[in-house]
Amino acid sequence: MHGKFRTPMIIVNFKAYSEATGQRAVALAKEAQKVWKETGVYVGVAPQFADISTVAKTVKIPVFAQHVDPIRAGSFTGHVLAESVKEAGAIGTLINHSERQLKLSDISEIIRITREKGLLSVVCANNPEISAAAAALKPDIIAIEPPELIGTGIPVSKAKPEVVTDTIRLVRKVNSKVTILCGAGISRGDDVAVALKLGTHGVLVASGIVKAKDPYRILREFAEAAIRRRGKP
Amino acid sequence: MHGKFRTPMIIVNFKAYSEATGQRAVALAKEAQKVWKETGVYVGVAPQFADISTVAKTVKIPVFAQHVDPIRAGSFTGHVLAESVKEAGAIGTLINHSERQLKLSDISEIIRITREKGLLSVVCANNPEISAAAAALKPDIIAIEPPELIGTGIPVSKAKPEVVTDTIRLVRKVNSKVTILCGAGISRGDDVAVALKLGTHGVLVASGIVKAKDPYRILREFAEAAIRRRGKP
Amino acid sequence: MHGKFRTPMIIVNFKAYSEATGQRAVALAKEAQKVWKETGVYVGVAPQFADISTVAKTVKIPVFAQHVDPIRAGSFTGHVLAESVKEAGAIGTLINHSERQLKLSDISEIIRITREKGLLSVVCANNPEISAAAAALKPDIIAIEPPELIGTGIPVSKAKPEVVTDTIRLVRKVNSKVTILCGAGISRGDDVAVALKLGTHGVLVASGIVKAKDPYRILREFAEAAIRRRGKP
Amino acid sequence: MHGKFRTPMIIVNFKAYSEATGQRAVALAKEAQKVWKETGVYVGVAPQFADISTVAKTVKIPVFAQHVDPIRAGSFTGHVLAESVKEAGAIGTLINHSERQLKLSDISEIIRITREKGLLSVVCANNPEISAAAAALKPDIIAIEPPELIGTGIPVSKAKPEVVTDTIRLVRKVNSKVTILCGAGISRGDDVAVALKLGTHGVLVASGIVKAKDPYRILREFAEAAIRRRGKP
Repeated sequence: MHGKFRTPMIIVNFKAYSEATGQRAVALAKEAQKVWKETGVYVGVAPQFADISTVAKTVKIPVFAQHVDPIRAGSFTGHVLAESVKEAGAIGTLINHSERQLKLSDISEIIRITREKGLLSVVCANNPEISAAAAALKPDIIAIEPPELIGTGIPVSKAKPEVVTDTIRLVRKVNSKVTILCGAGISRGDDVAVALKLGTHGVLVASGIVKAKDPYRILREFAEAAIRRRGKP
Repeated sequence: MHGKFRTPMIIVNFKAYSEATGQRAVALAKEAQKVWKETGVYVGVAPQFADISTVAKTVKIPVFAQHVDPIRAGSFTGHVLAESVKEAGAIGTLINHSERQLKLSDISEIIRITREKGLLSVVCANNPEISAAAAALKPDIIAIEPPELIGTGIPVSKAKPEVVTDTIRLVRKVNSKVTILCGAGISRGDDVAVALKLGTHGVLVASGIVKAKDPYRILREFAEAAIRRRGKP
Repeated sequence: MHGKFRTPMIIVNFKAYSEATGQRAVALAKEAQKVWKETGVYVGVAPQFADISTVAKTVKIPVFAQHVDPIRAGSFTGHVLAESVKEAGAIGTLINHSERQLKLSDISEIIRITREKGLLSVVCANNPEISAAAAALKPDIIAIEPPELIGTGIPVSKAKPEVVTDTIRLVRKVNSKVTILCGAGISRGDDVAVALKLGTHGVLVASGIVKAKDPYRILREFAEAAIRRRGKP
Repeated sequence: MHGKFRTPMIIVNFKAYSEATGQRAVALAKEAQKVWKETGVYVGVAPQFADISTVAKTVKIPVFAQHVDPIRAGSFTGHVLAESVKEAGAIGTLINHSERQLKLSDISEIIRITREKGLLSVVCANNPEISAAAAALKPDIIAIEPPELIGTGIPVSKAKPEVVTDTIRLVRKVNSKVTILCGAGISRGDDVAVALKLGTHGVLVASGIVKAKDPYRILREFAEAAIRRRGKP
């Protein structure tokens, strides 16, 4: 247990993929729920803003927003309010994904807001130093993702294990509690096993699941690898 | 008739107001629908992204997104995909609201995307020159809103009628077809009547409705003023 | 004559190229001045901010900033103030280059500021529609540069002549006075000749000159092509 | 001594103030140099980009840029290249000033670039947590400036001493070496003395000097207060 969630954990980022938009987002979330029911492994999904409520009404697994803005309720046309995604059913949010990078002070403010509103904060970081900087802001979860590997199918846990171990080492100097995930290129069960072996609490995945021919099969493979490595959660 | 929609029109921007988030967004949209049913005046609502699907499932009046990003489906975590808001039930989107201003080339790209996907484009502009520039990009609708009057209750149609008439004049030199709305400070029926008298096709409103004690009453007043001015639509 | 400057004109954008930084910026500006003295063709240079004063003290040809911010004097740490580049010796500025794109309202504000401060405004645009939008804001000069050709050595004037002619056609509907340049891929004298033949008043160039083995020789070739096409300016 | 510079130190940020643009920037830098010569206290100046070379040619005191971009030499029109400000005479740069805030990953990249190019990095931060995050990126100097006090004349060292001491405490957990400055509202010698007493190595000032009737007199007062507190440097 790490605070409000269990590890090992797998979060599936739906990005703005057409394979995970609208009704396909709901279908994919159902597959993820099936894996959770069958294996007990914590599987979260991060659909697009407009799909959060439909997905959250359909499945019981945790739903994350992909981003929220550093704002309080008010005159902020076109922005994403934390309360809004929470009321739609999200239990947390990604923050500072490499495709939606934020100002340092905005990351700090968003973490403060998520804490106030009872949302989990998952801050993404590009490298070990940035992970340590983000960890100093005391989010719930840090996800290290080297952007050069995102979407490549070359798993960070195997191609750059030192990025993962350096991250854990630098983050732990600053923050002893934060949960640490890794991502980028994770596409096979063994990539997940190696990620956990290196000391992370789970993985943040996207194309490896969303663009797979059979997302259920791959996600199930991920979950089983996680169980083998960590024991039944 | 102006293309796919009727005028006079009233679009209510829900912004990130707490009074118009989640279940309150749905309630407010129902009030707007009531006004439409009773008066026949085209009333659109622009809720937050996470509320689009719930609102669109509940009411039959047109729903707009408050923003979409200049992207095609793909690796764009935390961005707003046009297809996503469309599949959730939006029929159009605000673009370049003064609280969510965009690069010129992004406005151009978003208009192109909305056209391809069959969404109405409502480009907001701060002053007559910017309105003319936006009109050159051939959106469906231009909404002129002097930012210094937004949220003040001082109606643009009365406080700065020359901004409205200059906008119409400059926009018409560039684009003979685009529908023109005005907004900022619109809070009474007479403000709507004056806006139409100046030559616009309707209004874009926010706090004047959303933060009113009785939004239904004010919106009904707006609609009746529009009918008196223009005749039953 | 087009207002405060003469055509045909050639503006050389030094970007952040190492070949045109510091003393190399000064050396390159001297070569450009030599071409101007020998041919009479208006040749402007756009060095980096920190090089403007040194370049402007060394040569008599017109110096442009590559960007200014939409600000008035005040608390704007790290921003570029129009008065500052003017006092350093610039007579104008590029605005909205495809590598430094701006919000529509900021382009409008910068044009207003340059007008007040007596600086020439050169607004860059990606395509004909954006050029027309920019022209509605009444800058002194529009430069059309399809970003996909920038730095390629494939000249816009030959590869996409319709982009240039469409730009001229759409811009002229909106603005009968603005000077029109084109750029991207211009690397030989003939590319300049074709640009002028298509109806532009000159070219905006960068790598074709800055990264040439002998910038003087190529720039001289450009100027001679311009004279042959237009007659001695 | 802290690495390449001495403490106590005073850095004067010229912002985009008209009182410190062009020839007035040079005049103000001369006053700062006079204070350094008379007191021996390390006084740096941070003029606008276009003034760096003229200022650096005129005075011997250290000159800082107000910002550099996270770029290497190349096609980056309108951006600020570290080599460019260095060749113009800057020995370091402010980074992430509250008026020019940056993405976390860009701060990290700029610190890396300044290190490679031999420039001092002065990262500004809004609050203690953000200071600690910035310190994890190993810059040379951290400057804590609560934005709500900037330009007010209400000194951070007196109005919010706990912000300063919390910053020192949190930063030291993460980074034992970084030099720590504070700023915002510093306008009298005593404000500097208190800042040093709280444990900082100096101050970052702007309007308190630049907009003073007699900048020399105030800066001299600052330097003398620093000496009294720390002893002749």
